[in-house]
Amino acid sequence: MPNPTLFTEMDTLQQDGDELEWKESARWVKFEEKVEDGGERWSKPHVSTLSLHSLFELRTCLQTGTVVLDLEGYSLPQIVDEIIERQIDEGMLSPDLREKISFVLLRKHRHQTKKPIHRSLADMGKASGGGARECPSALWSRMAIGIPIHIIVLPMNKFMKKIPRDAEASNVLVGEVDFLDKPFVAFVRLAQATTLGGLTEVPVPTRFLFILLGPTGKAKSYNQIGRAIATLMVDDLFSDVAYKARDREDLIAGIDEFLDEVIVLPPGEWDPKIRIEPPKKVPTADKRKSVYSLNELGQPNGTAGGSGGHAEDEEMPVAHELGEELAHTGRFCGGLFLDIKRKLPWFPSDFYEGFHIQSISAVLFIYLGCITNAITFGGLLGDATDNYQGVMESFLGTALSGTVFCMFSGQPLIILSSTGPILIFEKLLFEFSKNNGIDYMELRLWIGIHSCIQCFLLVATDASYIIKYMTRFTEEGFSSLISFIFISDAIKKMMGSFKYYPINTDFKPDYVTAYKCECLPCLSPSPYSSTSKTLNITDLDWSQLSKKECVKYGGSLVGNTCKYVPDLALMSFILFFGTYSMTVSLKKFKFSRYFPTKLRKLISDFSIFMAIMTFVGLDRLIGLKTPKLIVPTEFKPTRPDRGWIVLPFGKNPWWVYLASFVPALLVTILIFMDQQISAVIVNRKENKLRKGCGYHLDLFWVGVLMAVCSFLGLPWYVAATVISIAHIDSLKMESESSAPGEQPQFLGVREQRLTGILVFVLTGVSIFLAPILQFIPMPVLYGVFLYMGVASLSGIQVYTFSFWERIKLYMMPSKYQPDFPFLRHVPLRRVHLFTLVQIICLTVLWVLKSTVLAILFPVMILGLLVVRKMLDMVFSQHDLAWIDDILPGKDKKDKKKKGDKDDTKKKDKKKGRADDSKDKVRNVKIYCHQLADLEQKKPC
Amino acid sequence: MPNPTLFTEMDTLQQDGDELEWKESARWVKFEEKVEDGGERWSKPHVSTLSLHSLFELRTCLQTGTVVLDLEGYSLPQIVDEIIERQIDEGMLSPDLREKISFVLLRKHRHQTKKPIHRSLADMGKASGGGARECPSALWSRMAIGIPIHIIVLPMNKFMKKIPRDAEASNVLVGEVDFLDKPFVAFVRLAQATTLGGLTEVPVPTRFLFILLGPTGKAKSYNQIGRAIATLMVDDLFSDVAYKARDREDLIAGIDEFLDEVIVLPPGEWDPKIRIEPPKKVPTADKRKSVYSLNELGQPNGTAGGSGGHAEDEEMPVAHELGEELAHTGRFCGGLFLDIKRKLPWFPSDFYEGFHIQSISAVLFIYLGCITNAITFGGLLGDATDNYQGVMESFLGTALSGTVFCMFSGQPLIILSSTGPILIFEKLLFEFSKNNGIDYMELRLWIGIHSCIQCFLLVATDASYIIKYMTRFTEEGFSSLISFIFISDAIKKMMGSFKYYPINTDFKPDYVTAYKCECLPCLSPSPYSSTSKTLNITDLDWSQLSKKECVKYGGSLVGNTCKYVPDLALMSFILFFGTYSMTVSLKKFKFSRYFPTKLRKLISDFSIFMAIMTFVGLDRLIGLKTPKLIVPTEFKPTRPDRGWIVLPFGKNPWWVYLASFVPALLVTILIFMDQQISAVIVNRKENKLRKGCGYHLDLFWVGVLMAVCSFLGLPWYVAATVISIAHIDSLKMESESSAPGEQPQFLGVREQRLTGILVFVLTGVSIFLAPILQFIPMPVLYGVFLYMGVASLSGIQVYTFSFWERIKLYMMPSKYQPDFPFLRHVPLRRVHLFTLVQIICLTVLWVLKSTVLAILFPVMILGLLVVRKMLDMVFSQHDLAWIDDILPGKDKKDKKKKGDKDDTKKKDKKKGRADDSKDKVRNVKIYCHQLADLEQKKPC
Repeated sequence: MPNPTLFTEMDTLQQDGDELEWKESARWVKFEEKVEDGGERWSKPHVSTLSLHSLFELRTCLQTGTVVLDLEGYSLPQIVDEIIERQIDEGMLSPDLREKISFVLLRKHRHQTKKPIHRSLADMGKASGGGARECPSALWSRMAIGIPIHIIVLPMNKFMKKIPRDAEASNVLVGEVDFLDKPFVAFVRLAQATTLGGLTEVPVPTRFLFILLGPTGKAKSYNQIGRAIATLMVDDLFSDVAYKARDREDLIAGIDEFLDEVIVLPPGEWDPKIRIEPPKKVPTADKRKSVYSLNELGQPNGTAGGSGGHAEDEEMPVAHELGEELAHTGRFCGGLFLDIKRKLPWFPSDFYEGFHIQSISAVLFIYLGCITNAITFGGLLGDATDNYQGVMESFLGTALSGTVFCMFSGQPLIILSSTGPILIFEKLLFEFSKNNGIDYMELRLWIGIHSCIQCFLLVATDASYIIKYMTRFTEEGFSSLISFIFISDAIKKMMGSFKYYPINTDFKPDYVTAYKCECLPCLSPSPYSSTSKTLNITDLDWSQLSKKECVKYGGSLVGNTCKYVPDLALMSFILFFGTYSMTVSLKKFKFSRYFPTKLRKLISDFSIFMAIMTFVGLDRLIGLKTPKLIVPTEFKPTRPDRGWIVLPFGKNPWWVYLASFVPALLVTILIFMDQQISAVIVNRKENKLRKGCGYHLDLFWVGVLMAVCSFLGLPWYVAATVISIAHIDSLKMESESSAPGEQPQFLGVREQRLTGILVFVLTGVSIFLAPILQFIPMPVLYGVFLYMGVASLSGIQVYTFSFWERIKLYMMPSKYQPDFPFLRHVPLRRVHLFTLVQIICLTVLWVLKSTVLAILFPVMILGLLVVRKMLDMVFSQHDLAWIDDILPGKDKKDKKKKGDKDDTKKKDKKKGRADDSKDKVRNVKIYCHQLADLEQKKPC
Repeated sequence: MPNPTLFTEMDTLQQDGDELEWKESARWVKFEEKVEDGGERWSKPHVSTLSLHSLFELRTCLQTGTVVLDLEGYSLPQIVDEIIERQIDEGMLSPDLREKISFVLLRKHRHQTKKPIHRSLADMGKASGGGARECPSALWSRMAIGIPIHIIVLPMNKFMKKIPRDAEASNVLVGEVDFLDKPFVAFVRLAQATTLGGLTEVPVPTRFLFILLGPTGKAKSYNQIGRAIATLMVDDLFSDVAYKARDREDLIAGIDEFLDEVIVLPPGEWDPKIRIEPPKKVPTADKRKSVYSLNELGQPNGTAGGSGGHAEDEEMPVAHELGEELAHTGRFCGGLFLDIKRKLPWFPSDFYEGFHIQSISAVLFIYLGCITNAITFGGLLGDATDNYQGVMESFLGTALSGTVFCMFSGQPLIILSSTGPILIFEKLLFEFSKNNGIDYMELRLWIGIHSCIQCFLLVATDASYIIKYMTRFTEEGFSSLISFIFISDAIKKMMGSFKYYPINTDFKPDYVTAYKCECLPCLSPSPYSSTSKTLNITDLDWSQLSKKECVKYGGSLVGNTCKYVPDLALMSFILFFGTYSMTVSLKKFKFSRYFPTKLRKLISDFSIFMAIMTFVGLDRLIGLKTPKLIVPTEFKPTRPDRGWIVLPFGKNPWWVYLASFVPALLVTILIFMDQQISAVIVNRKENKLRKGCGYHLDLFWVGVLMAVCSFLGLPWYVAATVISIAHIDSLKMESESSAPGEQPQFLGVREQRLTGILVFVLTGVSIFLAPILQFIPMPVLYGVFLYMGVASLSGIQVYTFSFWERIKLYMMPSKYQPDFPFLRHVPLRRVHLFTLVQIICLTVLWVLKSTVLAILFPVMILGLLVVRKMLDMVFSQHDLAWIDDILPGKDKKDKKKKGDKDDTKKKDKKKGRADDSKDKVRNVKIYCHQLADLEQKKPC
């Protein structure tokens, strides 16, 4: 059983007016917090920087002072008596000092809390009849009775939350008194942790007590010794020693172990006044243990020379492991069944774990992303297919596919959406059908059916296993490309405003009278204005017609303002840029110093929502007619001549049903690659998902939805990388910091199905939300798009190796580059070369993507895999392990074998060391004593 | 004479293919730079974190190895031979190892440089006939001859710049060899620093040599020992010991001194793999010396408890010292003469020190600020005085006063400008004159003359000394107020765009045909349109008239667009906000990691210029008629009926000449306070000015200029706080970092007269610059104004105590607050209270300033002084010393007396300590040896 966590409080003896009292001066949960000089403030938690000196002095103190282990103590006065008796018995203390020391030690304790919440020890003494039991009737005794000390349990304060429930306290008391001529030292371990009245700031029972009283003039030195023992007490390994020590020697050995591990900063290179912020991560006790017993592995930062490679190997990044999800079972549907088996136990938790405030912001964020996407793609699809699939179909399809997928898929964090390649395919298909007199919807249905069957085949044969060849190289290439497309689309759409609402740059305010736009009747009706014929043109009041009506009735617009629209373009830009910048700033707010953590986290989580609200408000306030989000309000197909069900037979010749197998193959490859690579990105190990994934199950449902959507005449859907990453990003969990100063750790993602389902249900009912949604200007949503693209490009905080970070390195002189682990191990020019290859690949993909070849997109991803394979010839496996991953089958066996050998070696060594380490450390004690002697200020 | 700086290089023995070679693995100028694993990269400079262990091992090494001090060495082979002989003589080495060790030690050295620039040792040996002199004819000898080593001086590389000219090198060689069974250790100090061929990366002569060869299997341990000695060698105190050591014992004592000072990090709270960035400041060797000899003062960060107050006192901020500049001489014009005496010697350097690239950016920045100010105030003054003083006068006055002041004043960094209080005074004065039939210009001239005389009186009596009562409290109150006014003016002017160019928010793009604005003739000519009478109204083509003409000829504007101006307001906003944000971002760019420091500094220095250029470009690109900067182009008074000289007599009755004494008094107080408080802010000690200031001289010139401007009918000028701060900010100097990793320090300000003079000469010739200046949109300049206000509010980097920082504290939970020194010493609630008082004062001032009471502004500043005086009753002097300054005469004597006593005490102590420290440290050596023994891995 592990030992309880120790909370350490250090109190120093202070003169408060006439009275002596013990004043809390520092505390340690894991890091040190000091009471600042004013006495009203806790310092920030910081790493305790000690002087070597004080550690040696402490060592001497423990050698010469009283060490009582497993004392049966129930109250402070009794414990103090016990210690004093022992010292007197051993001749270390003159009996006439008994009273005085007891008096000092039982002085009131004043803690660093706001209100005085102590009752006096005397009260307790009276109540239990214990405190005053053995007190002689001297002056000292009477004073001792007056010692105030609290026994009521302190109100649970905020700080208590930072201390584990099972914690025990160690109390350090140091002070200088005028009646001693040599120090009085005691280290006590109680047999049972006991609440000793007001000794401790928090209601945690005391287990250890360290007392150091000494002659005046050395307060600083005593303080340092107190800090040293306090720091030791919160050290994982030393506290273990303290709990298990059988005698004084064990404690000394513990100090020596500690000393052997300490990190030393040269005095000329560091100012001891600087408080060192707690590091992001500290070595675990286990690791330190092994370091200690295998001293060669203890490798301080600057280890010069690389001759001894053991330690380096140890920190090598773990090989690319995709786990059993992608094993090739060789059985029919083996992978699918495993997926179901894996995911089924999590199914209930996938729902109840969704209830969290964070989910709300995630739903809002992703919902807005989804409907923007649905509207954009809906509009484009409508254009491409002559409204056979329009905005209405897009909404319905998104809602249906999304809900089903999030409900049953292997990875419900993935968000389905229309994607570019599919759009291009539909466009080509529609043109082909139109030109060849083939019914588009029926052809499409058959392609969907074939594709669905092909997906099932891929699922049944565990074909998804091939994606284990996708390393970070491929993932980054793909996701960067998609991010770039997102960013460029957002900017393009924004710039579109300047095209739709041209600005009249020649406008001169003074010549406002010269600007007009009139609708003049065309005297000779143009042949195409058919409607005008039916109306009596002369009946019209032409000047009252709007622009559209004017054109409709064949009028012509005459004037110098006709083609201009004032303000809208600039306003759109302000809304777009404002939304983006505000989201970025609010997201960053989490890392600012203002306001409590929780509020900041909330602001950061809801940054997008707040930015949207702000700029929707601004838009309303100014009241310009900026383009707004318009969702369909009626439930009917966009094209009036089509129904909700596409029938499979009747319109095309029979051979079309078979021939559609060929285009279906393209669609299948397209869907397979798009879907699975997004899934790989979502399932990256950096996301710390614990519920596993299900590539086969995902593909199965994508196939099913293909067929269903084809029958309903809805668009096809696959995983959307950028929105899925945004989904994960908005569901990230961080640990609440435990000990003060400990950095919160990324724990993983709130994996559940609820947010996804809600997003798509909301998408479905958007028809009814139209009255609310119509206030949202489109430029605001483009701003959100821009944010999504940029955020997914720069990656979530966890990926420090990312492509984007490496691109930045190009612009940094090497001395300013961040201390990335891979830079310590891979030469910069190799890193740059690798990045360059990625940039070239990306450029090629980008160029191809902009042409009609985009339909071969999935093949290009395969191309990326080939490029990566070729990189094996250019880069060493060592370098690739750091900047990419090692391909399966490469060097794995070798590595493993080596690892095994190392292991056994280590074990042997460990054993040998462990045997003699005991003896060794026991003897080191000699120095300290001498050091103290020599420096002629031995406090002990 | 101080010892030369030591550059330390550590080489480790490596197997390169078949050959052994010494490979550079780390180097130290002050901090450690390590060769990264790939061997192609220097790590960032970092604090060397050592293990205590390695220090003890090093100690043992020096105790047991060969220590040769003041060896007469001229070449590496000779030195190596010498060492080996000694070891053999002392029986520490078996003679048959002689050849092998010599062979290993003379292997080629490979440095961390790009190109191979070494010539072989053999060449050198042949040339000097030395290298091979004593070589026996054995196999080893022949090999030794083949050792390549360079003798040519390395080309001066960038790194050389970081090493002081007089530096010497210490070389550390460590490695493991298979033929030794116990380590071979040598520490050599050469009698003369000698360039030992290719031993060192840079052409620095070697003074020290540390060699450690040992049996295989302990490379890591040897490396650590090597790092330990290297770190010691660059330690200021130890290197001193190393240079002066008489024997081995001295070196050991040096290590012990070092050990006694080291800072220890507990292994459980720090990960040794983290490289610690060099701190901003390290304790100087002198300080450390005193710490060492007075151990009680060595106070690591967390000193718990405040009982020992000595050390605290030591770091107390120095009392508010304004220096001799403000002493009350008691002699007639005593202060003025002292000012002239002080400034005169600097006069030549005030010019030649202005030649620097930074000056260009400063001139551009301040010039733009000045002309914007001149135009704004010129316009306002013109309105207020019916164009008696208009934009032209404003330009001329600014140019004249500024040039004269910058040329002759005591503090040429101060920029003169029109200020708000003066503007209000002129307004009131003009109204008074008009209503009472008094000639304004003549009255103003007499007020100017009286005021000038009054200023001379103040100068002659050293009256400026009273401003020594202005502490940070007053300065901050004043400068914050001025900054707020700047910010609010900038925003107000920006928002004015929305008023001047109203947006038609009802515009519906489709109804473009419905929008027009027509000029219709008024059938009954209005009585005030006098011009229309002279024209035949019917002759006019009314529809061709511009807005202004239409109004002029009495037409009426009819239509729904007449009062709207499209796009300009939004465009102005984009320009305003864009200029501001871009300036802020570019300023911050200095702290980014991209691009080399110099380029970043350049970008940061020219940030305002670049932002202005960008947005001027954008404005040109879009081509909208945004309001532009229009400067006068003709040299003539704004009002045609006035000349350039105002005559003193003739227009007003005689008593006016005398009575103007009274308003002059108000002007004098106003000018005195405005001028001197700005001067105090400019002369703050944080700005590290070294050429002194001259309050009396400044006031003298302000008085002279008052009179001159009054005669010429130009506005009056005083010091402008915000622009002066911007001036200083743009002239800040930072040290080039010397050792790699050392942080650049703020050195001071480029104090000279050139930039100021140039700014005002440019202002004068702006009339000819009109063709260029007319491209600058006003909103861009308002953006610059906003930046100036915000920058002067948040203060220059140096002032970490600033008002603004303290306001931010209100919003920070205390645990996130930065570790400001004053927070360590003053309770937070006291800090908050102090800030609150400032906020209240500021609010009151702000409110008063917005009313006509603004003319009493100088009196309000006196009010601030009174408030500050009263704070002495609320706050302790200790608290005030930290968050403000102590008023003159307060507690000064006490402090001084105490300081004296402390000094003598310190000296005594120091002496006593110094005597016994020698003996003490000499004895500490015992431990290390034992430690090494016990841990059974003694490498020595």
